[in-house]
Amino acid sequence: MNASERRAFLLEGTRTGKLSTTRRDGRPLVTPIWFVLDGDDVVFTTHETSGKARGIRRDPRVCLCIDDQRPPYSYVIIDGEATLSNDVDELRTWATRIGGRYMGGDRAAEYGARNGVPGELVVRVVPVRVVSEAGVAD
Amino acid sequence: MNASERRAFLLEGTRTGKLSTTRRDGRPLVTPIWFVLDGDDVVFTTHETSGKARGIRRDPRVCLCIDDQRPPYSYVIIDGEATLSNDVDELRTWATRIGGRYMGGDRAAEYGARNGVPGELVVRVVPVRVVSEAGVAD
Repeated sequence: MNASERRAFLLEGTRTGKLSTTRRDGRPLVTPIWFVLDGDDVVFTTHETSGKARGIRRDPRVCLCIDDQRPPYSYVIIDGEATLSNDVDELRTWATRIGGRYMGGDRAAEYGARNGVPGELVVRVVPVRVVSEAGVAD
Repeated sequence: MNASERRAFLLEGTRTGKLSTTRRDGRPLVTPIWFVLDGDDVVFTTHETSGKARGIRRDPRVCLCIDDQRPPYSYVIIDGEATLSNDVDELRTWATRIGGRYMGGDRAAEYGARNGVPGELVVRVVPVRVVSEAGVAD
């Protein structure tokens, strides 16, 4: 995939990201996330007590996989550096956009309000390296 | 989800796994895999030179996420210990079953032959802990 194909793939429908972080004892953790893009950055929200947030505070190096689970199968893998923000305005903005993507525009404000509250964080992943393959089985 | 719901979820259609391992420098890696179950074990194949195989040789503690990317969103996360086998009979057997799941029964033998060759490995993940949630957005 070229850059614009990758972008379209990442933003297609309600495709989720699978975010991998590292636990305190060195074991990997991988969890699904709802995300949007800001330029090339991947943006999502999480609670400050989540395994994701704790992992990122210890080590901001994360890996993300987004894939199409149907034939012919395609994927994008993003290595990046994550930063956390607890700015409430920023949080509300992103939570609303993310809610709109995954629950539909008519429920965006509801999700913005639900996830735009103290204790939640905005996570921004700046890509360092991106690998992709379209039509793995072709 | 209870155990039988989890099992049905893992085996539904061509849902892929996202496998997380740890790189030499401590960064996580997450990649999509085609898998089947053997009892509760997750079984997949990979080449001996892949990042997955190299990560598992260094540290067999892996994490897997399988999710439904459509509303109302559901997921299973499996922490497990991975072992590698280069037994060619075993490899051919699993590669055929996995090919059947992801490419259809009429192409199972073709994929068994393609992936059942020296250099490929069978990876078996024995679950240590499983977390799941059905209908996250409900």
